[in-house]
Amino acid sequence: MAPAYSVDETNIINRLKRIEGQTRGLQRMVSEGKYCVDILTQISSASKALEKVALIILKDHINGCVRDSIERNDSEESVDELVNVVEKFLRT
Amino acid sequence: MAPAYSVDETNIINRLKRIEGQTRGLQRMVSEGKYCVDILTQISSASKALEKVALIILKDHINGCVRDSIERNDSEESVDELVNVVEKFLRT
Amino acid sequence: MAPAYSVDETNIINRLKRIEGQTRGLQRMVSEGKYCVDILTQISSASKALEKVALIILKDHINGCVRDSIERNDSEESVDELVNVVEKFLRT
Amino acid sequence: MAPAYSVDETNIINRLKRIEGQTRGLQRMVSEGKYCVDILTQISSASKALEKVALIILKDHINGCVRDSIERNDSEESVDELVNVVEKFLRT
Repeated sequence: MAPAYSVDETNIINRLKRIEGQTRGLQRMVSEGKYCVDILTQISSASKALEKVALIILKDHINGCVRDSIERNDSEESVDELVNVVEKFLRT
Repeated sequence: MAPAYSVDETNIINRLKRIEGQTRGLQRMVSEGKYCVDILTQISSASKALEKVALIILKDHINGCVRDSIERNDSEESVDELVNVVEKFLRT
Repeated sequence: MAPAYSVDETNIINRLKRIEGQTRGLQRMVSEGKYCVDILTQISSASKALEKVALIILKDHINGCVRDSIERNDSEESVDELVNVVEKFLRT
Repeated sequence: MAPAYSVDETNIINRLKRIEGQTRGLQRMVSEGKYCVDILTQISSASKALEKVALIILKDHINGCVRDSIERNDSEESVDELVNVVEKFLRT
């Protein structure tokens, strides 16, 4: 079976490529001695872009694996796993 | 003047290289159809690694530019700027 | 129908009472001129406690409303809503 | 010496009172069986309001204690402490 996020695969890969470019740009900014606050702003932007990718995959995951597990009446583990992975994006 | 983070420059660049590698690894995971939750866990890890870099730069920035501005008795702008950039890492 | 979180209602209410107590404690700390860093640490603790409550309710919500909508084959809206509310806890 | 945040004391106390009210409102929403997503939205709002208070205190703290320590040429500990407390608001 195709993974749940396959519907958004190109979108996700393109976003990740952009984030990879941002992390390379950050290395250049540091090597060139750019202003700390500009670097911090760029880090915050890359970090938010990563969270946006996470949300897209999360949605596909719920619409895919989690939905399947509910339809199979076997969702306890997949819901626990889902909540645990959301928790990784919080600070608790 | 060397930027404030120059003391940690190699450390910061190495961390950013590792994060760049993680974002490339994420693209591979998506192309290969890896399990959503494993991808989300890896995104969370890259995002935390970015925040760690931000904290290192933040500390150097306070010990450099912010300290200088306080010693020059001209810190209002630099403190505002510092708080604004910290805010970018919160959700407010 | 009972709301999805009714299974954890007492647990949730007790946690919220504790957080209410923390916010009252914070007011006292401020009035008494306690050290900033101690106040900030306490704010961080209250904020994490709120996120923990959110995770409990989120799990009940997925096991309740979201599951029901999937079983009724009418989950598009409820999954969108779920992802949107998770997004409120991120920084994107 | 008055604590650094005394300039904003009334503002901070009023914000904390509002957050205390929100946590009481949340208990009522849970008791009355309000919709999960509305409760989660309200939790997110209280959590952001807490972070806003933290930013106000953080700014006063930098303008007070941290500035004093720099002027006394004895800032190593206070800068470490500052970065550590900012870290509590991130996810690292």
